[in-house]
Amino acid sequence: MTSIPTPSVPAPDVLRCAYMDIVVSDLAASREFYVDILGLVVTEENENEIYLRTLEEFIHHNVVLRKGPVPAIASFAYRVRTPEDVDRAEAFYQELGCRTERRADGFSKGIGDSVRVEDPLGFPYEFFYDVEHVERLAWHYELYGAGALVRLDHFNQVTPNVPVARKYMEDLGFRVTEDIQDEAGVTYAAWMRRKPTVHDTAMTGGDGPRMHHIAFATHEKHNILYICDKLGALRKSDLIERGPGRHGVSNAFYLYLRDPDGHRVEIYTQDYYTGDPDNPVVTWDVHDNQRRDWWGNPVVPSWYTDASLVLDLDGNPQQVVKREETSELEATIGADGFSYTRKGDTDHGFKLGHQL
Amino acid sequence: MTSIPTPSVPAPDVLRCAYMDIVVSDLAASREFYVDILGLVVTEENENEIYLRTLEEFIHHNVVLRKGPVPAIASFAYRVRTPEDVDRAEAFYQELGCRTERRADGFSKGIGDSVRVEDPLGFPYEFFYDVEHVERLAWHYELYGAGALVRLDHFNQVTPNVPVARKYMEDLGFRVTEDIQDEAGVTYAAWMRRKPTVHDTAMTGGDGPRMHHIAFATHEKHNILYICDKLGALRKSDLIERGPGRHGVSNAFYLYLRDPDGHRVEIYTQDYYTGDPDNPVVTWDVHDNQRRDWWGNPVVPSWYTDASLVLDLDGNPQQVVKREETSELEATIGADGFSYTRKGDTDHGFKLGHQL
Amino acid sequence: MTSIPTPSVPAPDVLRCAYMDIVVSDLAASREFYVDILGLVVTEENENEIYLRTLEEFIHHNVVLRKGPVPAIASFAYRVRTPEDVDRAEAFYQELGCRTERRADGFSKGIGDSVRVEDPLGFPYEFFYDVEHVERLAWHYELYGAGALVRLDHFNQVTPNVPVARKYMEDLGFRVTEDIQDEAGVTYAAWMRRKPTVHDTAMTGGDGPRMHHIAFATHEKHNILYICDKLGALRKSDLIERGPGRHGVSNAFYLYLRDPDGHRVEIYTQDYYTGDPDNPVVTWDVHDNQRRDWWGNPVVPSWYTDASLVLDLDGNPQQVVKREETSELEATIGADGFSYTRKGDTDHGFKLGHQL
Amino acid sequence: MTSIPTPSVPAPDVLRCAYMDIVVSDLAASREFYVDILGLVVTEENENEIYLRTLEEFIHHNVVLRKGPVPAIASFAYRVRTPEDVDRAEAFYQELGCRTERRADGFSKGIGDSVRVEDPLGFPYEFFYDVEHVERLAWHYELYGAGALVRLDHFNQVTPNVPVARKYMEDLGFRVTEDIQDEAGVTYAAWMRRKPTVHDTAMTGGDGPRMHHIAFATHEKHNILYICDKLGALRKSDLIERGPGRHGVSNAFYLYLRDPDGHRVEIYTQDYYTGDPDNPVVTWDVHDNQRRDWWGNPVVPSWYTDASLVLDLDGNPQQVVKREETSELEATIGADGFSYTRKGDTDHGFKLGHQL
Repeated sequence: MTSIPTPSVPAPDVLRCAYMDIVVSDLAASREFYVDILGLVVTEENENEIYLRTLEEFIHHNVVLRKGPVPAIASFAYRVRTPEDVDRAEAFYQELGCRTERRADGFSKGIGDSVRVEDPLGFPYEFFYDVEHVERLAWHYELYGAGALVRLDHFNQVTPNVPVARKYMEDLGFRVTEDIQDEAGVTYAAWMRRKPTVHDTAMTGGDGPRMHHIAFATHEKHNILYICDKLGALRKSDLIERGPGRHGVSNAFYLYLRDPDGHRVEIYTQDYYTGDPDNPVVTWDVHDNQRRDWWGNPVVPSWYTDASLVLDLDGNPQQVVKREETSELEATIGADGFSYTRKGDTDHGFKLGHQL
Repeated sequence: MTSIPTPSVPAPDVLRCAYMDIVVSDLAASREFYVDILGLVVTEENENEIYLRTLEEFIHHNVVLRKGPVPAIASFAYRVRTPEDVDRAEAFYQELGCRTERRADGFSKGIGDSVRVEDPLGFPYEFFYDVEHVERLAWHYELYGAGALVRLDHFNQVTPNVPVARKYMEDLGFRVTEDIQDEAGVTYAAWMRRKPTVHDTAMTGGDGPRMHHIAFATHEKHNILYICDKLGALRKSDLIERGPGRHGVSNAFYLYLRDPDGHRVEIYTQDYYTGDPDNPVVTWDVHDNQRRDWWGNPVVPSWYTDASLVLDLDGNPQQVVKREETSELEATIGADGFSYTRKGDTDHGFKLGHQL
Repeated sequence: MTSIPTPSVPAPDVLRCAYMDIVVSDLAASREFYVDILGLVVTEENENEIYLRTLEEFIHHNVVLRKGPVPAIASFAYRVRTPEDVDRAEAFYQELGCRTERRADGFSKGIGDSVRVEDPLGFPYEFFYDVEHVERLAWHYELYGAGALVRLDHFNQVTPNVPVARKYMEDLGFRVTEDIQDEAGVTYAAWMRRKPTVHDTAMTGGDGPRMHHIAFATHEKHNILYICDKLGALRKSDLIERGPGRHGVSNAFYLYLRDPDGHRVEIYTQDYYTGDPDNPVVTWDVHDNQRRDWWGNPVVPSWYTDASLVLDLDGNPQQVVKREETSELEATIGADGFSYTRKGDTDHGFKLGHQL
Repeated sequence: MTSIPTPSVPAPDVLRCAYMDIVVSDLAASREFYVDILGLVVTEENENEIYLRTLEEFIHHNVVLRKGPVPAIASFAYRVRTPEDVDRAEAFYQELGCRTERRADGFSKGIGDSVRVEDPLGFPYEFFYDVEHVERLAWHYELYGAGALVRLDHFNQVTPNVPVARKYMEDLGFRVTEDIQDEAGVTYAAWMRRKPTVHDTAMTGGDGPRMHHIAFATHEKHNILYICDKLGALRKSDLIERGPGRHGVSNAFYLYLRDPDGHRVEIYTQDYYTGDPDNPVVTWDVHDNQRRDWWGNPVVPSWYTDASLVLDLDGNPQQVVKREETSELEATIGADGFSYTRKGDTDHGFKLGHQL
């Protein structure tokens, strides 16, 4: 796909990323990970689904864990400003020729009138306004563990052609805050937001459509370190895929975990305010070794290569299309790639490559 | 004043509180406080003015320190979404019959077309879009002290009649996130926001118009504790007026300082996302002793009584009008007031009162 | 008592404060406080006693909660280096003419051969070497709450004559690290250690013998702040007596709580290494308002006046003797007292006094 | 060398590791690293030497940077309890047949009567009591950067035969707190202490004698994270060799840096009290992938292979002897090695190996 037309109808007014509908193969194993280890709060559950939220959330859920045959993502759900914005979303995607499905009673408990679409990139997007309010547990410190997750922060999606994806998301009303490019103008990733943080979702260049990760926020960095300590204590440190560390992009502190099905979860804290319309966009050089880890620590290859399947509206996995441009992994590691700590330094490479 | 009419023209689209123009009596003493102690970044300065910003800011300044005869506040400045919103602001206040002044070159360096108004409550409000961009120093950790201030978070204003102020601010497009009331319906304070934090400004009931405080955000709580440690080391601990502590209202961690002229500065971190239109409003009982300090620590009387004068557009102090309703101090401390830790407990009072 | 003779026999080699035997009136209420709220680990318990330890401890317990008729302290227990040091302790106190009681099976579970004494100041001191090892839970992060208590740090005792107490403790092998005096040479308090921290116990001038507090250490300051947040969430903020804050003396970060019987518990972190024999002693001026809180925040009067009774070896409360010298409270607060932030400043007093 | 005899004379009473005498090739570059970046305090300096200390230190220095032709370590210096312990140290090593040199005026400024020895393992050890006191800056928070180093914590030495080294160090009065072994009884490393932390020095198996690292302590983990952030900001992230992370051994939080000459510096915080004579020794399985990083993050090969030369008493580098037993690197990584996250898991290896 080389471009996606701009619809003539207005885009829905998206507030924020709101929840992800995650298909898992073993509900008990996933519950142990998301509830017992990470401490997400169970809003309600039954034998097929668990509805989870963060401690500062007041809408019904930020995650649905749904038992299913193939681990995959059934929906990236955004909340919109008004009930009418659900209509706008439906019209927006219908004009794009996308398959849409509207349900007055929603696709998950606690949520009313919604539309789900197979978006032009192949992702299952959902838009809703109507939602059941539940207690915001912000003041319930007796429920806070040492690694308390307080907010859903963002999604991250893998798609072959980032500029195509970016333009479509801008049509949908998102604004780019940061991106990674090379000197030839190839874009490797872009971060885009509705709420005034660095992102509600990011587009990561790669074979797609796939889901790269879902990210939850903590208040402080020590909360993230504690999650690592706890995983060590549980002898589950191999669930830590990458980090903890400081991102270059976003300036946030991060950790990447893999859930029992391999779905990637980021724990994230302390990016910056981006809400002004002229918020400066930060472009990183793909060869800058501090772009993804400000401390220059290696990005493990699986972080670049692995991602979760996404489902169409029938619940079948979308076909994955190969990225045609250079991958960030190839551009930065190994025989054909290079990274620098100081621009202009040519003799000193990527730390991991340097070591091994 | 018993009510302020709702203008028929649309309100400007306010993005956020952006800067405060503060008149100080001794520029060198103020520089020591704001730059040497608190570590705000000097964008530019001359013998009469110092322009300061926080580490994550990209607009020219968040504070102007301006040498003048009477310590007071010359402007509470908000950034609006577009240049046309400055026109809207001007029309909005003109319809309210307020005095306004428009300057194409702005009222302070780095800022272009602006309007200043004497608002219906007597406060000097300013609205601008055009502003000079400066470097966002977010990644410049070599400039971060241990108590680094990263964002301007909010203003806080003292006004006699909070419901009147609240209705006017809602007309201006602000949304209330929390308030303090008593069982008879008296409102003691209200918090209101444009950006999706707990507030861009708050209205505190008291003799006014006066400026209660300006608040800067840190990333973590230890940053705030360090500021206290440093003030102790400098033998300036008497600049600490209240805290550090955890607020009930806003759930944020806080500290209140007094600058060399007595202007109050809050250091603040970690409130919650409020950007959904149906964000639940939290109402606190004025007798709940955890409303202003979640740990029940005493609010010193000066925090209730002291505040800074504000200036009219000629630079003269606005006349202060007495609050007629019960003050929060009277309602909660001393012979006529009471506070509880657990609703229904009648035998156990406010910790400070209990002690002395 | 004007002085205590130096025994001719060698003092026992004390390693550290090890546990406190605390008599409580309601075991269930105390269990809720020490276990459910503070997170101490239960080593074992029965209907009359609960044995508790910190997360990094490997000896059987750091606290015994013992049901009894009068809330009081039954023992301040120190561990000594060898079994023979128990003999030395017995001989040391016998030469001082103190009542002693030796039990081969110990006075509490998990502890073997011990001697308890009624020391010259009237305190029930205990010395033991033999102790049951239990698992050091340091690596069991799955058991760490957000306010995890990792070590017993120190005791604090109230006694009328601090210099007399100090000389006796130095004979017992303790070294003074810090003290508070006035210009006339009156000593208000002294801190003394065996392990190389600021103290294993402190002597606080006041009516005694009484127990001022027992202190547990956390790793970081945010752990202490969380305990406050949790108490707020449980609507038990009135258990917070003083703090959190930074001590002048010891340079540690602190919080004082009161347990359900009024026994005072300190949570404490980050003092400094004192193990060199010529470690500099720090003497604070009693009028220095930063000596007890480096930020100049008020010390509530109850902190000076309240303390727990201590028991004799028959389990009866020791008679409390009045302090004859000036109290620190009188010296620093109110009509007859004064405190300064900057030595030489005479016009600016104690913050609390200044306010009320 | 298969064993070192136990001297018949008493060992000196060592208090703690006190300072390291480090030869550097470029004094200005080293000053930038240790002073400008790490914030160590300059006690005094001249064109050939810089004397540095940590913020809580009261002895003259914890580090000497000394300009010299070959980057190497001139001395690992320990403070002893009394002047007579310097005599004891001299006699102890003379009985071992080691070369010793006594200087009444010390080997570095601020230090008096000292003995330096070429110890049986080939390391330049120094023992002193007499030292100039300087101001303990603990309360001088105005001097604390965000990554403040408050104490010298330990040394770490590379030696071919760890059991031989351990037995000798135990003769010198050190106690082992933790070690790493394999199922065949090969010891890969051992940690040993005088002060009651996990170590004053450690013996790491490898080609030696060489200096593995010197470690400084911070108060909290965020201080260490800040050092990484600052190095990123300075575009010197390639000075980060390993970490930050949580150690298995010691349970401390760590970071390893390389100074401009490649000397390794650890930043370290929060190990546990080890001062009881029966403190439990923790033995780790060399194949336990959480032993060196509790989170299972990879140990870069350079951390195993690189170390600094040490000097003899003439200032010439000691010859490096090869380790004959298996190296920890070989035992745990690559074709011949293996590591597990959960004992018994055979199909799941070391994370790095798994990735590459």
